[in-house]
Order: sequence, then structure tokens, then C-alpha cells
Amino acid sequence: MSEAKLSIGFIGLGIMGKPMAANLLKAGFPVRVFARPLAAARELEALGAQVETDIATLAGKVDVIITMLPDSPDVEAVVLGPGGVCAGATPGSVHIDMSTIAPAMAQRVAAELMVRRVGSLDAPVSGGEQGAIDATLSIMVGGPQATFDEMAPVFAALGKNVVRIGESGAGQTAKACNQILVAITIEGVAEALALAGRLGADPAKVRQALLGGLAQSKILDVHGARILERRFQPGFKAKLHRKDLGIAEEAAQRAGLELPATKLVYERMSELADRDPETDHSALFTLLG
Amino acid sequence: MSEAKLSIGFIGLGIMGKPMAANLLKAGFPVRVFARPLAAARELEALGAQVETDIATLAGKVDVIITMLPDSPDVEAVVLGPGGVCAGATPGSVHIDMSTIAPAMAQRVAAELMVRRVGSLDAPVSGGEQGAIDATLSIMVGGPQATFDEMAPVFAALGKNVVRIGESGAGQTAKACNQILVAITIEGVAEALALAGRLGADPAKVRQALLGGLAQSKILDVHGARILERRFQPGFKAKLHRKDLGIAEEAAQRAGLELPATKLVYERMSELADRDPETDHSALFTLLG
Repeated sequence: MSEAKLSIGFIGLGIMGKPMAANLLKAGFPVRVFARPLAAARELEALGAQVETDIATLAGKVDVIITMLPDSPDVEAVVLGPGGVCAGATPGSVHIDMSTIAPAMAQRVAAELMVRRVGSLDAPVSGGEQGAIDATLSIMVGGPQATFDEMAPVFAALGKNVVRIGESGAGQTAKACNQILVAITIEGVAEALALAGRLGADPAKVRQALLGGLAQSKILDVHGARILERRFQPGFKAKLHRKDLGIAEEAAQRAGLELPATKLVYERMSELADRDPETDHSALFTLLG
Repeated sequence: MSEAKLSIGFIGLGIMGKPMAANLLKAGFPVRVFARPLAAARELEALGAQVETDIATLAGKVDVIITMLPDSPDVEAVVLGPGGVCAGATPGSVHIDMSTIAPAMAQRVAAELMVRRVGSLDAPVSGGEQGAIDATLSIMVGGPQATFDEMAPVFAALGKNVVRIGESGAGQTAKACNQILVAITIEGVAEALALAGRLGADPAKVRQALLGGLAQSKILDVHGARILERRFQPGFKAKLHRKDLGIAEEAAQRAGLELPATKLVYERMSELADRDPETDHSALFTLLG
């Protein structure tokens, strides 16, 4: 397969999926799209995509099927359900799931597709809507090395930092680790800046000083600035981060691993999402004091 | 006062204090030293320092008195106690406390010295022994702007990232915030890498992927590498980080602020320090699973 000839089917045209599909079109891939509701698909049609109204039919027409869906049950239904990707895909084609779902579900999807001789990669992303638009997403990939290599041109059109972590599920595991670390670091930044303010030190100066030392992080930089300015429009929504932390927490529990800070931030993100599901995750700060 | 003329008295020649005093000598300051035991002072004598055997006498002979001591009670005794800095210092001289102590104690020290017309700055550092040796410490300063400006040549001989945070105590507040954020981030890195390993993904690859995205931090880089290699010789000792987190936790409580992740890492660092006080703080990882 040469780069020019890989045809792509894209399922799920939300905040992330729509700009990703647009970037694939810009890179010269022929793209077929499916989305509920159809309106988002029509937008992509204007950029040159073919609109399909049936998932199995779409899957049967392309070399690569990409799914970008909200959660594990959505991927399970769209890929493994009746009339889904697995039912329609031709042997030798490859499914790439770029949703953030449970590592165990990613492994189940890969196993069921393998029976049909359909390749499979789990390839969740980080970098948010802006990263999707700018094609600068970080992509964490699980699955066979050969399939990863074959899909390199596709990933190159979507992101910058593309790393194969390991076998099936390893991409989702890395994403879970990412979401844990991001949430815990936000909580740390929030608590540090809250303490500074309460003790009468200028939190902006504390942030500036800490950025020059061992406490430096991208979160202190980006989310620290959000907290100082009380700029809590998303960004990344609390309800989505709660979902991702739930995946990590459940995976840890199933593996018999107790992660106390992960548990803590899952509880706090849940409290925040109950109160204001659409707010940015950096609003963890507002739960303090 | 010109740079060449500022004479310095240095009290406390431990792992940090000794190389700091040596750097002041290298920068051309006349330095008098006091330490218990005297052996460390004798080492500095070989580099050109004058050894003093009485704190108040030392304080009376110099323009600037620097203290670098283990904890709040040490600073209280050395500065405010009988025969201490406050008793001996001449009006117009300046005391700089570079120890990590409670912000409230820093404010008390400054207030008592002010009565004697002795200037005062709290100026805790981060960067560890290597930063002290290389004169690359980050220095967080609290106290009057004019005193800070006057002491600029002294700080320039000791560190790189020198920031005045605010009035007396603000340097210690920034340091407390730093120690919170460092500890919470270490716990986050430890939990993320533990989860990766338990779920069968290569923690080294997960670290590498996460360094390229929003989860990036100096801790993920430096302490992440320590954790992967199980390299837990200090570094920064668990017992010292426990002490610093105790300062932060107590300051938060006195201010009526509940900081759940700070409380959690204080408890975990205490557990680690009980088990192995001399181990590096990144050994928080060993408490998992």
C-alpha cells in the first residue's frame, strides 16, 4: 500500500474527529465518513469526503477504519455490534481506535477483529481540540509493530509525537497514565497556588519562581495561568476527565493496584463534574478553601 | 556598600551550607564562619574563611549574616536565642535566612530583628546539593525590596533563578508551595508508572510518550528515570521532604485551608521516612503495589 492509495473510513465526527478527518483529507487521503447526526458528515462532504449512512458498508469499502468515539460502550457497539465495523470490514484492512477507552476493551476489540483477519491498533491521543486542528496530537499506540509501521502515513497526518508503546491495549494504558498524571498535577498546582494566596504571597510570583525549578511542569505553566486568571471555559471538560480517571481507576482495581492519589483526584474530579460538567478540569482549584 | 566590601558571616555548614560559603569566598566576599561541629568550619578556613567560635561575636563583625540550618527551632535558637544573631548583630546589618522553615517563624524572626534595626530576608532555596555546589540554586525571597536589591550581589554568587516573592515570609511560602508540588508530582509519576507496569506496558516507553505532551514535568523526567532504574540513593532525603511537607501542612491548617493531596503526600512521605529516612523522595514509588 502506498500512502496515496490508503483509503480511510472515519467514524465519529465530534470536537476531535471532525478536524482529524479534515486533516486526512488535506493530506490527500480519500476519506469516507459516518456520523450521527449526519450534519457533521455533511460538513466534511464540502471538504471532499464521501458520506456513508451505514457503518458496515463504510467498513467494507476502505483500507483503514478509524473510530473516534466518546467511551468504551460506544466503541463496543460500533465495532463489535451487529452491522458494525467487525461485520463489514474486509480481511487485510486495519481498524484504528483513537477514542479513549478501557485497555481491556481495546484488547477485546483487537482479539475479535483478529478472528476476522482485520488488523487493529489502539491509538488514543492527547493535545485536545487545538492539537486535533493543528495536527499536533500526541498519539499513544498499542498493537503489532508491522501494523504500526504500515499506518505511519496516517498518524503523520494527525499528530506529531507518535509513539508505539507496546502490544494491543498499551496505547490505552499510556493514555490512562497520562490522564492520571495530568489530573494529579493539576490538583498539585491548585493546592500550591491556593496556599500561596491564603498565606498572602502573590500566586503569580510563586508560579513564576516555581517554573524555574524542580516543580516545573507544562500544567504549572498552562493550567497555572488558567487558575490565576480564573479562566475555566474548556479546554478539557471535567466530565471527560472524570470518565478517563474512571477508566484508570477501574483498570488499577482490576489489576489489584491501589493508587491513592489517583483515587483522590477521581473523587475530586467527580465532585467538580457533578457541580459543573462542562467546566475546564483546572477548575479543581475552585473546590479548595 | 559596594560588592567587594560586604563582609559575610555564615552559620550552618552542612551539605548545603558548606558549598554555599565556599562560593561566597570564590566570589571574593570576606567570609567568617560558625558551625557545630567545628570540623566543617576548619575546611572553609583552608579556602580563606575566618573561623568564629561564638555566634553573637560573629554577628557583630559582619555586614551580612547568613543562616542555613535544619529547621524552625534551629533558626529560632540561633537567631533569637541568648548569645544569638539578634543579640550580636549591629544596626544596619542584614540577616538572610536560607533555611527552609515555617513562614510564620520567618515573620517572627524579621519582626524581632527589625526592633534591633537589623534587616531581614527569608531566602530558602531549591536545587539541592548539586545546585549549591554549582551556584545554580533557585532562591525564593521574602522581605523589603530595598534589602533584596542591596543583597543582589550575595544572591548572584549562590544561585541563578532569584525571585523576590513578596514581604517577610513570602519566600518560605513559595518554598512550601514548591515542596507540595514536587511531592504531589512525584506521587503522580509513581502511580502512573506503577499502573503502566502492572498493566503490562513498558513504563520507560510510557514515560517517553508522556514527556512529549501535557503531562510533561521535570519530575517525570528526573524522578521518572530514577523510578525506572530503582535509583533511590539521595538526592533529596525522605525525612527532609517529610519535614518540609509538615511545614506546608501546618501552615495550611493554621490558615484554615484544607489541601487533600498535600495531606495525602505528607502521610505517604511520613510512611516512607519512617521506613527509610535516608532514601530519596522518589522512593514513594516503593509504597505502591
